[in-house]
Amino acid sequence: MDRDLLQRQLRSFLREDIGNGDITSEPLFEADQQGMAQLVARESFVVAGAASVAAEVFRLQSSEIRCSDARDDGANVEKGDVLLHVSGPVVELLKAERVALNLLQRLSGIATVTAAFVAETEVYPVRITDTRKTTPGMRMLEKYAVRAGGGYNHRFNLSDGVLIKDNHIAACGSLSEAVRVLRERIPHTVKIEVETDTLGQVRESLGCGVDIIMLDNMDIETMKKAVAMVSGAALTEASGGVSLETVAAIAATGVDIISVGALTHSAPSCDIGMDWQRP
Amino acid sequence: MDRDLLQRQLRSFLREDIGNGDITSEPLFEADQQGMAQLVARESFVVAGAASVAAEVFRLQSSEIRCSDARDDGANVEKGDVLLHVSGPVVELLKAERVALNLLQRLSGIATVTAAFVAETEVYPVRITDTRKTTPGMRMLEKYAVRAGGGYNHRFNLSDGVLIKDNHIAACGSLSEAVRVLRERIPHTVKIEVETDTLGQVRESLGCGVDIIMLDNMDIETMKKAVAMVSGAALTEASGGVSLETVAAIAATGVDIISVGALTHSAPSCDIGMDWQRP
Amino acid sequence: MDRDLLQRQLRSFLREDIGNGDITSEPLFEADQQGMAQLVARESFVVAGAASVAAEVFRLQSSEIRCSDARDDGANVEKGDVLLHVSGPVVELLKAERVALNLLQRLSGIATVTAAFVAETEVYPVRITDTRKTTPGMRMLEKYAVRAGGGYNHRFNLSDGVLIKDNHIAACGSLSEAVRVLRERIPHTVKIEVETDTLGQVRESLGCGVDIIMLDNMDIETMKKAVAMVSGAALTEASGGVSLETVAAIAATGVDIISVGALTHSAPSCDIGMDWQRP
Amino acid sequence: MDRDLLQRQLRSFLREDIGNGDITSEPLFEADQQGMAQLVARESFVVAGAASVAAEVFRLQSSEIRCSDARDDGANVEKGDVLLHVSGPVVELLKAERVALNLLQRLSGIATVTAAFVAETEVYPVRITDTRKTTPGMRMLEKYAVRAGGGYNHRFNLSDGVLIKDNHIAACGSLSEAVRVLRERIPHTVKIEVETDTLGQVRESLGCGVDIIMLDNMDIETMKKAVAMVSGAALTEASGGVSLETVAAIAATGVDIISVGALTHSAPSCDIGMDWQRP
Amino acid sequence: MDRDLLQRQLRSFLREDIGNGDITSEPLFEADQQGMAQLVARESFVVAGAASVAAEVFRLQSSEIRCSDARDDGANVEKGDVLLHVSGPVVELLKAERVALNLLQRLSGIATVTAAFVAETEVYPVRITDTRKTTPGMRMLEKYAVRAGGGYNHRFNLSDGVLIKDNHIAACGSLSEAVRVLRERIPHTVKIEVETDTLGQVRESLGCGVDIIMLDNMDIETMKKAVAMVSGAALTEASGGVSLETVAAIAATGVDIISVGALTHSAPSCDIGMDWQRP
Amino acid sequence: MDRDLLQRQLRSFLREDIGNGDITSEPLFEADQQGMAQLVARESFVVAGAASVAAEVFRLQSSEIRCSDARDDGANVEKGDVLLHVSGPVVELLKAERVALNLLQRLSGIATVTAAFVAETEVYPVRITDTRKTTPGMRMLEKYAVRAGGGYNHRFNLSDGVLIKDNHIAACGSLSEAVRVLRERIPHTVKIEVETDTLGQVRESLGCGVDIIMLDNMDIETMKKAVAMVSGAALTEASGGVSLETVAAIAATGVDIISVGALTHSAPSCDIGMDWQRP
Repeated sequence: MDRDLLQRQLRSFLREDIGNGDITSEPLFEADQQGMAQLVARESFVVAGAASVAAEVFRLQSSEIRCSDARDDGANVEKGDVLLHVSGPVVELLKAERVALNLLQRLSGIATVTAAFVAETEVYPVRITDTRKTTPGMRMLEKYAVRAGGGYNHRFNLSDGVLIKDNHIAACGSLSEAVRVLRERIPHTVKIEVETDTLGQVRESLGCGVDIIMLDNMDIETMKKAVAMVSGAALTEASGGVSLETVAAIAATGVDIISVGALTHSAPSCDIGMDWQRP
Repeated sequence: MDRDLLQRQLRSFLREDIGNGDITSEPLFEADQQGMAQLVARESFVVAGAASVAAEVFRLQSSEIRCSDARDDGANVEKGDVLLHVSGPVVELLKAERVALNLLQRLSGIATVTAAFVAETEVYPVRITDTRKTTPGMRMLEKYAVRAGGGYNHRFNLSDGVLIKDNHIAACGSLSEAVRVLRERIPHTVKIEVETDTLGQVRESLGCGVDIIMLDNMDIETMKKAVAMVSGAALTEASGGVSLETVAAIAATGVDIISVGALTHSAPSCDIGMDWQRP
Repeated sequence: MDRDLLQRQLRSFLREDIGNGDITSEPLFEADQQGMAQLVARESFVVAGAASVAAEVFRLQSSEIRCSDARDDGANVEKGDVLLHVSGPVVELLKAERVALNLLQRLSGIATVTAAFVAETEVYPVRITDTRKTTPGMRMLEKYAVRAGGGYNHRFNLSDGVLIKDNHIAACGSLSEAVRVLRERIPHTVKIEVETDTLGQVRESLGCGVDIIMLDNMDIETMKKAVAMVSGAALTEASGGVSLETVAAIAATGVDIISVGALTHSAPSCDIGMDWQRP
Repeated sequence: MDRDLLQRQLRSFLREDIGNGDITSEPLFEADQQGMAQLVARESFVVAGAASVAAEVFRLQSSEIRCSDARDDGANVEKGDVLLHVSGPVVELLKAERVALNLLQRLSGIATVTAAFVAETEVYPVRITDTRKTTPGMRMLEKYAVRAGGGYNHRFNLSDGVLIKDNHIAACGSLSEAVRVLRERIPHTVKIEVETDTLGQVRESLGCGVDIIMLDNMDIETMKKAVAMVSGAALTEASGGVSLETVAAIAATGVDIISVGALTHSAPSCDIGMDWQRP
Repeated sequence: MDRDLLQRQLRSFLREDIGNGDITSEPLFEADQQGMAQLVARESFVVAGAASVAAEVFRLQSSEIRCSDARDDGANVEKGDVLLHVSGPVVELLKAERVALNLLQRLSGIATVTAAFVAETEVYPVRITDTRKTTPGMRMLEKYAVRAGGGYNHRFNLSDGVLIKDNHIAACGSLSEAVRVLRERIPHTVKIEVETDTLGQVRESLGCGVDIIMLDNMDIETMKKAVAMVSGAALTEASGGVSLETVAAIAATGVDIISVGALTHSAPSCDIGMDWQRP
Repeated sequence: MDRDLLQRQLRSFLREDIGNGDITSEPLFEADQQGMAQLVARESFVVAGAASVAAEVFRLQSSEIRCSDARDDGANVEKGDVLLHVSGPVVELLKAERVALNLLQRLSGIATVTAAFVAETEVYPVRITDTRKTTPGMRMLEKYAVRAGGGYNHRFNLSDGVLIKDNHIAACGSLSEAVRVLRERIPHTVKIEVETDTLGQVRESLGCGVDIIMLDNMDIETMKKAVAMVSGAALTEASGGVSLETVAAIAATGVDIISVGALTHSAPSCDIGMDWQRP
């Protein structure tokens, strides 16, 4: 993640939670009273963002906060494991605590779900990727968590990848015409992906040399035929309602990519607490 | 929700998803080509944000988009029910679609979980409230969804309510001293809440006239004793690891409020699609 | 004050005064030419913001500026007293000077007026509080100055406290109905205040258990009766055209709080200069 | 005033006062409930900003608010006079009320003080001008109010006018050298003003052809000599501790400009209320 | 161009030129005094941005300004041709004039240079593209102008396309290793381009299946060999010091793309004036 | 240049070029891998912005980057000369490289063109100045480059200098009336400039005591007569289509200032590269 971009976001998150100030802590602590605490796993999960996000939240809140012992992204932790050690002015630690925890819990939740999908498909040469079904305002961070969990990213937003869907095809008269028009307009550095529902559309996509063919909500048998038809001439991407129960069978069809909205839109937060250490 | 604040957030969400523009749709559609579509439930859930958020996303993207037939917040919908009807320039509808769906899915997910907690406790005169365990950047919207689901809100952030915890007590020597110091500093318009772990702390809180006593992670029996001890002299709030399985028993203790982090930190998104209508 | 919030404001104030740069000083001084100066009282007053605001302005303008010997908030100073000592690059000191002085003069003016109201009422157990009649853009700072002068703050803005006025009552049919509707909507952490003009309204307010009863523009006799009627069941707040001449009599009625718009809307600036020291 | 700039400021002022929303009014009023009100003078004063600022606040808050009957800037109003008529959704009127009043009261206060200084000097061909001693964040508006009161503006900020003071002279060795260096650096469109304490400095300023000579804290006799010495070869500006008591005598010396910090740093707010009209 | 993004930029451009307001025009014109004017070519060139940019500047400055008769992007105009007709409040037209002209002159300048490169190579199936050598802050607009002139765009910024250069190769030990590492990290939607200096590097690039091979500063003969070696297995892009004199020879080598920094970094502005029409 | 203002701009330029991060470099380099490079002239030119702008870009990108050996503004460099030495984390150097180069190339281009105009007129006591024909968003930087090249600046924007043109005169009935109205409105610190087309207008301008008379598009003979007529009673400024071919003859007329749009609107970028140094 670009650090400047990350810091801008984290600052706005801190503002949201702190508002006009912590009216409980500011009057009760001397500004320079020091404390130490640990972010501790309360259950088993896969870590995302301890060093890169949670520690950055604390350091942004105060340059006097020190962070250490961050667990690596992708690490499997057990209940009781320490994810991050923080020390510094108590009032600043308290002001940063909730944002750091909320982020670490959510990102680790996404990494954990992603790791489960990756584990289900590890015998296949397939990529598990995210989608644009991320929490608004959190895309960069959530896509980071997907990578931490062993997954891969799909396009970041509408401007860095072409994905032709039904509407676009209807607007142009045909899939081929849509591809032709777009190829004439977009930078040569951009790939073209087409969403297909039928083997006929797969064939037409191949005919116009698209880079990626999305097989949208196809059943397993159709998907196998599609993969065979494509035969390496384009990347194939399975999409649509993929679950932990169905992902292995989809991977077995030989598709190159499986994109899974559930990685980001429905991952439950992991349980993480902040335990203060007595001097 | 304040409209100006809402619009600022939605604009930033649109920017995140649109980036430098929709490189697929902008070249393929005439700017004035019109279309119609419906946001449709793909499963049963409780609605939050169809009129107030999703429709606003579309209208912000283009003043030429018209929205109608929005389902009310709190409505129970079934698979196939239409949540919102939109019409306007196709390219603008496509640019707003993902943000509108991501928000409506997430907010409805929170409303649905909240409604489940409310249903479990409906025979008791108790409030189900949220916490500060919201997605960073989404607090205003997620708290709105909690209300849509029949829940109530806790304080918005660190600046609009006092909540005294272990650390604060330790810093001052005693709970009573912390209350005394704070009362001398905060506006008379602000309530004081204390987090208590033991009946002794409940008693001390009562002694210094706090407004709200949080019973943190107490077992059911202790909670009952605490409620009896307080006997209406302050509001009592149960907190800590509340689940759908335990919430009714907690409500039965007679507490006034049950705050539930899971309303916002782990609600899965509802499944909602956007179906285009052929002219 | 939250430091991040404070710094954002101070930066915008510096931008307003510096514009595209100091076209007088930038060409005349070497960037590293050092100087020393003192902010000095030119009359007697109560200090607010020397360490927390004026010094912060200088440090924000340049990390090479050092500040020391700041007088405490609330201190009574005489003509000639030094409020702050600053040293660093002359060009940076000059660029920050006006903003630092303008703030220190205004905040000290508010603290001085507040201290006068506090002095008038010191024999009574009453709080002098501010109102929302602050200079737009300066609320956080002006409320800080009120505290420095020995006063207290009322709610910060429309979102962190309920205050029911005539219009609200008219909209709901009755005061009691307005309270009922609001109580059902707002967080349990928020207090309800009602503005009353008559003893009848005071009685109705008591009947529905509001937290604070504002006695708006009541004469002294009515106010005494209202205080007797309330008898500690709610906080009482006198409001409306309070002046240094009338405040003691109001305090003598036994009200808990007296809110005074004049603390912030009409406090004259204190006279403070910046004296340069020859090496 | 530039309208885009004005609107940016007014929006930030509304945000400060509204925070996360008006938690009293939003639940109590239907969004489309209409109301009418008037901003009414509670004492005599000179108006500034009824049409240009207060009405703009209301319209920014909601495009459905209509404003009419605004009193002109500079008008002398009496107690009971209507300054502005507003109508529209009640909840929006309530959310804009405080900001509109706070601004109108303050700006009218500045106009009123300015008009008093102007009246004291009306028999002399002299300009009363403001200084940079404005409330941080309010400079554009406060300078507007000075003009409304019949005064004139001095430079807006450090970047649009040169003003050479003691420090600058010391840094260059002599006043003449400072002028020489600056003239070589600044645009030919910028005037050069020098702050002088003695007749010697006035003479030196004349010798190097500066555009404006500030006579800083000079006594009346010295000032007369300075004006005679300058004799129209530059503009003369009296400055330093000017009061209503001293301004006429200063004007009588024949100076062209009298700059008065008190116009903006210490003007008390005018008393203005918002009276709702029953349908 | 995305309209929201465009408007944000244009607003900041207007702010830069208007500052605190147009101190000449605002006092001299009644706010509602109407006028008409035309943007007129003072020499021959290729148009870019009359309808999409210049007209938008005027409309952003005031919703009362009407624009018509905009010449299409890519149109060849002669001296005296009208590019845009504007009408509305004179003061608003004057405030927008300079920004609109500055943009239209610069964008048309880029389109004109681009069209010249395109004309030189029109017999070859080659794309003329821009680079990242754009004016900071103007990338979106300048890339738009390149398209208006018949050119194509390269990647927008560092985040939407991979381009492996010397340093990256050195860091990884080999070109192939760099490609391997990157492919494992980037989304499958992103193409990989490699900058090559020698035929050996071209061969190695082919071996690891990159999408685009940049032939950097190669002589014509080497370029021909590279194109033959690649033989359609990847896109070939000539880059480095391309001029109008050399571009045709480069195109004749059979490369797919020629990227030209001079399209944006050195295009002179076209001469365009704003002629006011007398009523 | 004001440093805070500069840094705000440079940060936005970095954001534009970096987008969501450098997807090539971030995966390939360890965050702490160090490198060294030099910005080197590839042709002869006059430097602007090596120390003040390019180095600042690098330092803003990372506080770990060190810059040294910057060439002074205004220095004449030859092909091969080093303009700046940079060292620090390779990935940060790469992320800042393009913005630093784009700025340095453009600013040096402007300085070089300016220096050429200055050289043409060096025997005359005349100032070469810029205009408002700058690249939108780049005014502060481009005006800085003009000074680096030995030129001078005209007014910065519409708010810091009066320039009366045809339209303004027409609106008021006469030039004299326009001057009268404006003088009554603007601060006494602001100069008044009038654009004149005829000797009659020059005479009228003199009659009302304007500070600067612009001789717009006059032929050489008329200009001489105008200068003689003015005879030092105001500054004279030649303007309109000035080129390197015509500037000396214009200077010979005796005008005080020659303003040249071409300094900024059409200066080609200088050729500068970044050469990495092997350890």
